[in-house]
Amino acid sequence: MRDVAIIGIGNTKFGEMWSRSFRDLVVEAGAGAVEDAGIDGSDIDALYGGNMSAGRFVEQEHIGALIADYAGLATMHIPSVRVEAACASGGLALRQAIMAVASGWHDIVIAAGVEKMTDVTSDALTDIIVSASDREWEGMAGATFPSLYAMIANLHMRRYGTTREELAMVAVKNHHNATMNPKAQFQSEISIEAVINSSVVSDPLTILDCSPITDGAAAVILAPAEDAKKYTDCPVYVKASTQASDTIALHDRRDITTLDATVHAVKKAYEQTGLSPKDIDLAEVHDCFTIAEILAIEDLGFVKKGEGGKATKSGMTALDGEIPVNPSGGLKACGHPLGATGIKQANEVVLHLRGDAGRRQVEGAEVGLTHNVGGTGGTAIVHIFSR
Amino acid sequence: MRDVAIIGIGNTKFGEMWSRSFRDLVVEAGAGAVEDAGIDGSDIDALYGGNMSAGRFVEQEHIGALIADYAGLATMHIPSVRVEAACASGGLALRQAIMAVASGWHDIVIAAGVEKMTDVTSDALTDIIVSASDREWEGMAGATFPSLYAMIANLHMRRYGTTREELAMVAVKNHHNATMNPKAQFQSEISIEAVINSSVVSDPLTILDCSPITDGAAAVILAPAEDAKKYTDCPVYVKASTQASDTIALHDRRDITTLDATVHAVKKAYEQTGLSPKDIDLAEVHDCFTIAEILAIEDLGFVKKGEGGKATKSGMTALDGEIPVNPSGGLKACGHPLGATGIKQANEVVLHLRGDAGRRQVEGAEVGLTHNVGGTGGTAIVHIFSR
Repeated sequence: MRDVAIIGIGNTKFGEMWSRSFRDLVVEAGAGAVEDAGIDGSDIDALYGGNMSAGRFVEQEHIGALIADYAGLATMHIPSVRVEAACASGGLALRQAIMAVASGWHDIVIAAGVEKMTDVTSDALTDIIVSASDREWEGMAGATFPSLYAMIANLHMRRYGTTREELAMVAVKNHHNATMNPKAQFQSEISIEAVINSSVVSDPLTILDCSPITDGAAAVILAPAEDAKKYTDCPVYVKASTQASDTIALHDRRDITTLDATVHAVKKAYEQTGLSPKDIDLAEVHDCFTIAEILAIEDLGFVKKGEGGKATKSGMTALDGEIPVNPSGGLKACGHPLGATGIKQANEVVLHLRGDAGRRQVEGAEVGLTHNVGGTGGTAIVHIFSR
Repeated sequence: MRDVAIIGIGNTKFGEMWSRSFRDLVVEAGAGAVEDAGIDGSDIDALYGGNMSAGRFVEQEHIGALIADYAGLATMHIPSVRVEAACASGGLALRQAIMAVASGWHDIVIAAGVEKMTDVTSDALTDIIVSASDREWEGMAGATFPSLYAMIANLHMRRYGTTREELAMVAVKNHHNATMNPKAQFQSEISIEAVINSSVVSDPLTILDCSPITDGAAAVILAPAEDAKKYTDCPVYVKASTQASDTIALHDRRDITTLDATVHAVKKAYEQTGLSPKDIDLAEVHDCFTIAEILAIEDLGFVKKGEGGKATKSGMTALDGEIPVNPSGGLKACGHPLGATGIKQANEVVLHLRGDAGRRQVEGAEVGLTHNVGGTGGTAIVHIFSR
């Protein structure tokens, strides 16, 4: 197997993009990545598209063919593959694209993630997002997605003493980071009080504990590592790409305050690279709700189980902390177009490893990690990248 | 890269399975394949699931995690990947699973395809299936899926003199084959007159020119070819796995009487194997409509462009013909659970290469081909297998 490098990245602005269609968004991200890599579209050998639910959001399936077509690649008849793992669809597209290059089946591969979420009613939105959980045993019983994470939050608070303020600090930190990210959906500071006093969605989570509804797309171009310097002076190398699954429903888990899929995926990633949490200079993690970032930093090994809230409050995960988490603003403030998120996370790490992250740059970053979760942890995907 | 073999297959009965859920179906197919391979579930390293539109058919996404969970594999935390390419989702899952083994990332991999189509109204069905075509430029303009293939049929008839009887012969042949397939949805003979005189769906296609609405699932177990004999006395080897794309909308094609995606995919498959159409002993092709089988046998090189109708009428593609096509009964009579079809096709070829196809056995079959199409040809996937 070959080593793989990222030679180009592209990202739309994230937000409520009323004037842009699903097609517009993914083509803009892809074209940006092609331009960034300095290649021509005709150099691309295969395409992997990550998308959760275009079938319901825009009533379109056959997403691989659609993206290839609207990107002008269909006339080259390249293989184009859509993958789906709910909110981890982007990370999964990246992983499959890496496999395609590593295997030698393809040389230059583009992975693009996209979701256009704002063209449906809010009732439909709630229902579509529930389809990431177990429809028959969770959704049909009345669970919404925030209510599932609220159960996790309640147990985490009770068992480990995690406080309401600590949860809120995740949102405050990520909003602060997003003020330095021109592509972020919310580029404004918020306060702990604002989070706690905003409308309750599912107790204890308020609207400001939840990632927003977002349109957006992101893309990366991959090449064999040995060829990467032909295309760019600053390739970013894929050191690990791992994935694990778990029961889709929360009630079947051994413990809902740990996402075992994350634990298993990151364990493999550390084993494959010989790295430990101490070696990670920054991480983009899956903060679909504030509690999710607390689970993530625990399950990824940055802090001990139960200490995620305190660590967040202490500033350990701030941009100038020991391990900056979600410099992009995370799902919370950069936005969470479901299928795009996993690839946006990789783009963010690439910017830092290149030294191109502007005002939010993590100085001297050499190694970055991304962590993308599907549903409430039925899927977790971890990538480790280095300069 | 490693060579890959199929060591086990499983298939549910295809049909209107009112008493079986999406989950029941895919678990039955997977368990059948595991039993056939003589392995234990705990031997499985990764899962690939092919499914077109569970998001709309059963309001469930996150299909990889769901299948792994209900198959009892989630507690092993294996990577589980859902892929989608409309009606070619099964073939695509197989191809990605082959890549996973060929690359060395995984050893024992299961690919499972599933669709549960009969839990929605017929209006919803029509609308969901249109999402395999270009929603904005075809579906929104009023095109149904049969109407798109009817346009292809009309032009093929006008340009090449293909007759109504020749189209009907595809259905008659495939129904005849299905009488010998206990897993087929329709195990009954039909006549040319019955096809021509049944209700018109979109002129010239009648209801008996169309593949039915079907519930079903199919699975295969893959292993490195070098290990295959450890598991089975009759491994079937993957000789080629190729995929090509085309514009998603018909009106953007250079010629709608040829599926260029098929032409490009099979060209690569013949190049990779050094085989030619003459070397293929049987083929399972994508006859979602009768005209589609005629295009397929032309585009795959079994007959010259324009001669597919005559060849079918002559008996060339019958079970005792020069190149038996769709011995299973094809999509037309075996049934077409969208995401399962591509894997069912592989299962059928495996049965013949093992000599286990019962009354429909193609005697002495050494090499078989499968051809799975997404939409009206935005995706085509070709596999060649040998004993």
